[in-house]
Amino acid sequence: MSQVKYVLDEESIPKFWYNIEADLPKKTPRPVNPANGEVLPSEALEVIFSKMAVEQEFSQERYIEIPKEVRDIMRQWRPSPLYRARRLEAALKTPAHIYYKYEGVSPSGSHKSNSAMAQVFANKIQGTKYITTETGAGQWGSALSQACNIFGISCKVYMVRCSYDQKPYRKAMMEVFGGTAIASPSPFTEAGREILAKDPNCRGSLGIAISEALEDVFKNPDTKYCLGSVLNHVLLHQSVIGQEAMKQLEMAGEYPDMIVGACGGGSNFAGIAFPFLGEQLRGGRKVDILGVEPAACPSLTRGKYAYDFGDVAGKTPLFKMYTLGSRYLPPAVHAGGLRYHGMAPQISNVFEQGLMRARTVKQLDVFRDAVAFARSEGIIPAPESSHAISAVMDEARKCAETGESKVILFNLSGHGHLDLASYMAYFANQLQNYQYNEKEIAMALSMLPSQTPKE
Amino acid sequence: MSQVKYVLDEESIPKFWYNIEADLPKKTPRPVNPANGEVLPSEALEVIFSKMAVEQEFSQERYIEIPKEVRDIMRQWRPSPLYRARRLEAALKTPAHIYYKYEGVSPSGSHKSNSAMAQVFANKIQGTKYITTETGAGQWGSALSQACNIFGISCKVYMVRCSYDQKPYRKAMMEVFGGTAIASPSPFTEAGREILAKDPNCRGSLGIAISEALEDVFKNPDTKYCLGSVLNHVLLHQSVIGQEAMKQLEMAGEYPDMIVGACGGGSNFAGIAFPFLGEQLRGGRKVDILGVEPAACPSLTRGKYAYDFGDVAGKTPLFKMYTLGSRYLPPAVHAGGLRYHGMAPQISNVFEQGLMRARTVKQLDVFRDAVAFARSEGIIPAPESSHAISAVMDEARKCAETGESKVILFNLSGHGHLDLASYMAYFANQLQNYQYNEKEIAMALSMLPSQTPKE
Repeated sequence: MSQVKYVLDEESIPKFWYNIEADLPKKTPRPVNPANGEVLPSEALEVIFSKMAVEQEFSQERYIEIPKEVRDIMRQWRPSPLYRARRLEAALKTPAHIYYKYEGVSPSGSHKSNSAMAQVFANKIQGTKYITTETGAGQWGSALSQACNIFGISCKVYMVRCSYDQKPYRKAMMEVFGGTAIASPSPFTEAGREILAKDPNCRGSLGIAISEALEDVFKNPDTKYCLGSVLNHVLLHQSVIGQEAMKQLEMAGEYPDMIVGACGGGSNFAGIAFPFLGEQLRGGRKVDILGVEPAACPSLTRGKYAYDFGDVAGKTPLFKMYTLGSRYLPPAVHAGGLRYHGMAPQISNVFEQGLMRARTVKQLDVFRDAVAFARSEGIIPAPESSHAISAVMDEARKCAETGESKVILFNLSGHGHLDLASYMAYFANQLQNYQYNEKEIAMALSMLPSQTPKE
Repeated sequence: MSQVKYVLDEESIPKFWYNIEADLPKKTPRPVNPANGEVLPSEALEVIFSKMAVEQEFSQERYIEIPKEVRDIMRQWRPSPLYRARRLEAALKTPAHIYYKYEGVSPSGSHKSNSAMAQVFANKIQGTKYITTETGAGQWGSALSQACNIFGISCKVYMVRCSYDQKPYRKAMMEVFGGTAIASPSPFTEAGREILAKDPNCRGSLGIAISEALEDVFKNPDTKYCLGSVLNHVLLHQSVIGQEAMKQLEMAGEYPDMIVGACGGGSNFAGIAFPFLGEQLRGGRKVDILGVEPAACPSLTRGKYAYDFGDVAGKTPLFKMYTLGSRYLPPAVHAGGLRYHGMAPQISNVFEQGLMRARTVKQLDVFRDAVAFARSEGIIPAPESSHAISAVMDEARKCAETGESKVILFNLSGHGHLDLASYMAYFANQLQNYQYNEKEIAMALSMLPSQTPKE
């Protein structure tokens, strides 16, 4: 059975990023200062991020031009292929038409490279010499290392200690690309030293790693910070995915009835879904949009829409988002990229307005379906992306019962070559179906910041 | 700086394999029976291989049609991209034009999938139920596992024990694709048991693994064996690489002055070089063709052109090839796919006729250049492919001195995502510049089989 691939020429790489904010009926609330509840001025964010990123963060323009330099670099892996999953459809005996956009063709093996190039370029033109970031599973750290290498900027990645130990290949990839991966907590920052003094064997968390990276920024004038998801400008950079997919589905003579993406911080999901949602909001065809979360970290499906910190330590501004409480520590599912307490403010806004649905999937079902997908389609998916796969396969099985030829599009955001240890653990029956803990979430939500923003 | 990618549409996937044998001025000697020196009849090989593979092995036809079923499957990753290495050129300040064909886009991450699909399909149509093979580094075992999964044939891979322990991600990939990886020597065959009885901690060798796989074939009527390199039909299957590259270079308005490939068994090298060599032999433009070997295993540059066994144990027919002696055990370089004592008979013939050159590169230079390549081009190369990279970079540096705008084409046969442990060892200064051992080679060559074939 033939697989079908839709390939666009390089001239079809989008020339503009699409900004959903221009089309949303209700605007996404801006971040606020936790000290006084006032809307944060742009200048405050420019201490941390590049000027261009901050402009994009608050832009209301529908289309923002992609700098030629960024577009030129993306030509290496863009346009990414769109596949019709014919062998998977056959295996499921489903009349559904399943399409997936494959972002694993990028240098870092995931969609993260799309935003890394844009963010590092923005820093390059304003003279930034050092960039710091945090990384969990390592996709973002790899992408940023490679982008910094291309633009000649030093890159320091604080990698959560347990990931650093569990995923040595990710650390190696960052180093091959010229980045420096540091296990967090580290002895190189005050924040790190303080934690190590209390617990020399601390396994780290994203919150700690963010504190260390921000400390670097505050101490060094030529240093900026880059974030791999959550913020508006990061979601914006991923809009190339959905724009390309739209053209490729046109080639196939189809339009999606349903769009599915895994949701952690939300950038890969927004990347595939928002361009289609924009069409709908401008009077186009309605699409059933589904975000998929791990049962262990269900921010959309069990969280509260409230102002909360972006990190555990409470050093960031407050963002209005679906959150499990910034102090909630999700169980150690192997999809490290989905272990975030909150959801991107724009996605939270879209969800609150009823423009999308969300559901959870369990870890063992995710790996079962990831293996089935790999055997059908020949691509080993990242555990994060496999959350989308599992939900799509459920939907396709339903179609097999109802006979409906639903057109389903999903984002295969990355390959799992550096996650094969997780597959080994699955085959060895060492994985479990982590569920969220109702009481822990209630506790974390009870500790939400009390400041009432002046909206 | 923009990278340039040349993409063909799917209709440009070659419809025929190109068989160099039709154009060679002197035919490649057929394998002979070690017992009596007589040319081996096709029927003898059909015990081991599929009928279609044996036909292809001895075919003199210039073009052999690719079965539609195989072509349809290859649409997933073919045509593979051809890149102009602009950032590498800039880093080397060279006037050379460097192009590389990237085979890492296949399901197994290397060119091996091209032959695996063809070989398994050939077995499928004749009703083979089980396929066995051996694997060293694991690229071939991964490709064959996936191909067998697609065609519903059971796949058993005897993986050299030391690789099995060193490269757990490769084993995991085979299992995700539905294959069974068995550490060799194993307790499941007579050959394996015999060796384990003498040395329970034996680290294995390709020779032992081949013996185990062949034992399966001889004991079970529905079982066949597939080989990932060396034989004519395997080289034939890889001719899609060079045929596509020719079209892509046409798009770029160029023709190669030089073609470079890493040489282990020889299939990726032949894949890129033979279609161009065929043009030359039919009166077209002359190309400088360079095969690159590890200094630790220099079969073309230090070997003898003689009849020898394909395996250490001497269970195969005799092949006329450049060989270091089938008893030579190369040092444990990290390019496991290049640790073979012999060279493909067709490549040996081409080399003997002066139609190509060969050189060696050292392990530390290979990794230094692999890292430089990854930083320039954003692709982490497999250690095997990095041998070609290192030779190309030397050539490009020469062009920087002479000012020559030489057009260099090489085969980037696979990615190194599952080899990142080797990069870690390199960064930790744990690798060394293994050299071949003159005395060991002399000893192995003195033990070549004495049978004089009746040519």
